[in-house]
Amino acid sequence: MRAVDVIMKKRDGGELSREEIAFMISGYVDGGIPEYQVSAWLMSVFFQGMTSRETADLTELMLRSGDVMDLSGVPGPFVDKHSTGGVGDKVSLILAPIAAACGVKVPMMSGRALGHTGGTLDKLESIPGYRTNLSPAEFRDFLRADGFAMTGQTARVVPADKKLYALRDVTATVESVPLITASILSKKVAEGAESLVFDIKCGSGAFMKSFPDARRLAESLVNTGKAMGKRIVGVISDMSEPLGRKVGNFFEVEESIDCLSGKGPQDLMEITYRLAAWLLVAAGKARDPDEARRLCEAAVTDGRAMDLFRRNVRTQGGDLARMDRLYGHHRSSHSFELRAPASGFITGLDAYGIGLAGVYLGVGRNTTADPVYPDVGFVFERKTGDAVASGDLVARVYGKDEASLAAARPLIEGALKVGPSAPPPRKLILEELTAL
Amino acid sequence: MRAVDVIMKKRDGGELSREEIAFMISGYVDGGIPEYQVSAWLMSVFFQGMTSRETADLTELMLRSGDVMDLSGVPGPFVDKHSTGGVGDKVSLILAPIAAACGVKVPMMSGRALGHTGGTLDKLESIPGYRTNLSPAEFRDFLRADGFAMTGQTARVVPADKKLYALRDVTATVESVPLITASILSKKVAEGAESLVFDIKCGSGAFMKSFPDARRLAESLVNTGKAMGKRIVGVISDMSEPLGRKVGNFFEVEESIDCLSGKGPQDLMEITYRLAAWLLVAAGKARDPDEARRLCEAAVTDGRAMDLFRRNVRTQGGDLARMDRLYGHHRSSHSFELRAPASGFITGLDAYGIGLAGVYLGVGRNTTADPVYPDVGFVFERKTGDAVASGDLVARVYGKDEASLAAARPLIEGALKVGPSAPPPRKLILEELTAL
Repeated sequence: MRAVDVIMKKRDGGELSREEIAFMISGYVDGGIPEYQVSAWLMSVFFQGMTSRETADLTELMLRSGDVMDLSGVPGPFVDKHSTGGVGDKVSLILAPIAAACGVKVPMMSGRALGHTGGTLDKLESIPGYRTNLSPAEFRDFLRADGFAMTGQTARVVPADKKLYALRDVTATVESVPLITASILSKKVAEGAESLVFDIKCGSGAFMKSFPDARRLAESLVNTGKAMGKRIVGVISDMSEPLGRKVGNFFEVEESIDCLSGKGPQDLMEITYRLAAWLLVAAGKARDPDEARRLCEAAVTDGRAMDLFRRNVRTQGGDLARMDRLYGHHRSSHSFELRAPASGFITGLDAYGIGLAGVYLGVGRNTTADPVYPDVGFVFERKTGDAVASGDLVARVYGKDEASLAAARPLIEGALKVGPSAPPPRKLILEELTAL
Repeated sequence: MRAVDVIMKKRDGGELSREEIAFMISGYVDGGIPEYQVSAWLMSVFFQGMTSRETADLTELMLRSGDVMDLSGVPGPFVDKHSTGGVGDKVSLILAPIAAACGVKVPMMSGRALGHTGGTLDKLESIPGYRTNLSPAEFRDFLRADGFAMTGQTARVVPADKKLYALRDVTATVESVPLITASILSKKVAEGAESLVFDIKCGSGAFMKSFPDARRLAESLVNTGKAMGKRIVGVISDMSEPLGRKVGNFFEVEESIDCLSGKGPQDLMEITYRLAAWLLVAAGKARDPDEARRLCEAAVTDGRAMDLFRRNVRTQGGDLARMDRLYGHHRSSHSFELRAPASGFITGLDAYGIGLAGVYLGVGRNTTADPVYPDVGFVFERKTGDAVASGDLVARVYGKDEASLAAARPLIEGALKVGPSAPPPRKLILEELTAL
């Protein structure tokens, strides 16, 4: 077999055999196939796509390039949720303890902030002492003890994905549905989940800006996951506006605590409950999402979910007393107030603009080497649909220094739209696809 | 400027600026842009194409990556012909002395056989002593003395093309019209020609198998050459059957002598005269192709073209006496006779099959390192359209050894089609495009 023939076959729209895909992936990982052939192949996949069968083979071959989490000795069922990323999306922090309180295990491997989107690991690490670099043994032990555990990916999990992603990033081949599918799914299957719920974000603050693109990715994730024997739900949800009222690393820990205390904002609770409910249905803990949602609500109302959240913080090294003292006070001294430029209704609060501004403020990062800060971000007092009088406070904005505020301010002011009449109500959940 | 942004722009169908193309080409030549980004960019060009403006910029930037032939002191006009390659295509050897005899200068840089297609350099080098590695000074002097000169490309002519072609060859990005155009045209402009006639071969033995593909390449060559200020003619001609009656390195020198003696086969003379006539029209030596053809025919009839051919052989180191002695006798001792399998008419003599068989015989090569042989190939006694009785001699086939004959034989037998009725007459010249 020659790499050039495999590239040509895909370039001309052919369906690659499992052997051909394995030849490319293993050749790339072991260095036998040079990067210039792999990148030409990736670009041909970008243009010609892959069938469900090819995508499932690619996913499984990437999965097999590294270690798979050994959860032996931990009773299941194992479930996980994955979001394609957004702004203010702290659902993982709230959903994991809720689902664990309802009797499923959530072995969650997460990522870091990059570009305008936030990262679960950065949020958790804003809790003083919280560790996300768990050893496999710790991950297993903590999962058994608390019902969920939160860690980053080790270098030995799906190394093919790390290598491929680095190449895709510099060759403009990131935005390919089968490649995204294999990247996401291989890591989620490697962590041991049997049931998976995907939150495919759609809108300005999402990776997929348009609904057709989001739907293509959702279909690919659901079909490929099903082909790999997993129970899968794909939820396409709106990311045109940040989720919740707080955006920023420790700010989002605070809002997670709000949610687990029963005081969460409506949009964030709606999506969290829906995703958690599908996890329970997929794991066989409830017959339908409505029954599952009642179980989730009960776990919040009676405090079991909050207990598990606090147990996990302690288990993973976090300082609960300091976390509690910082709540509401962990704010940079560099701030300004965003005020309504006119009277009327807020008609938009662009998630992409807020996310990009967050990179300047110190919430996110442009490159993986940039530091992030815990005490910067946004606290929104009003959001889309709210009536405002000119000069009303819309948000308090905190930055790592004055220069960061100056750089972020035009983006933030540009993200806020005020108009004379109320916008149509936001539709948060746009479509659901299930393969159970 | 970042390479990934240029790749993305082309991937998404954008038109690259001259600066963006220059950034990619110079970055590749000087090593600043890694091959994995260049190959992803090439694949995006394969899928999205290039406008005439982009192709002209690419051609000129590639041209400027190296030396341009200095023809100062040689009176023009300078013209050249380029063929996209075929089987039995020895037109250059015949056309160059004919055109020179009609008062134009032909500074011809040629290539070698690769795959199923022959190469002018390999044919010329089958003449004992003939040198094709001329220095720039020799090339200029010989051109002035004889009206034409034949050489290979030095490493300093369009180095960007050599580097890009090597990468395209292993990344399945050869078959891209703008990339082919820039590769061909940059080299032809570098050799100093002001008027260019392109013979775009079409059919099984050609690089472009289908007429629409050949026409796209012809249009691209003509439009891009025009944009670069050259006078251009594109002739699309049939390559479904080998040209002439002899295929093989010295065999094709023999047939060139036949043609210059006025005894050439009809198909070969028709295409040679037509291409030579367009060269004279492009150079302003005749008003139209018919007038030009009469000039060309006169140069053959009165022996001036043959004189120039023999002068060039001597000038470039060839041994005329040995060439004359070898004529008709330079034949490998390993041979077989191809005979008609049935009575009827020859309905096809597939150029691709004959060309591939030639690689086994020792006419051509699979890789640039393979040797080629002078005394192997085909002498056809009958071609498409001829009536045959079962067992009639169709061709004598010569190979470098018995094994090569055994390997080539099934391909040759498969290339010969005999049917009950005469096929429609061959249309040799399919279309002509001019920008004069």
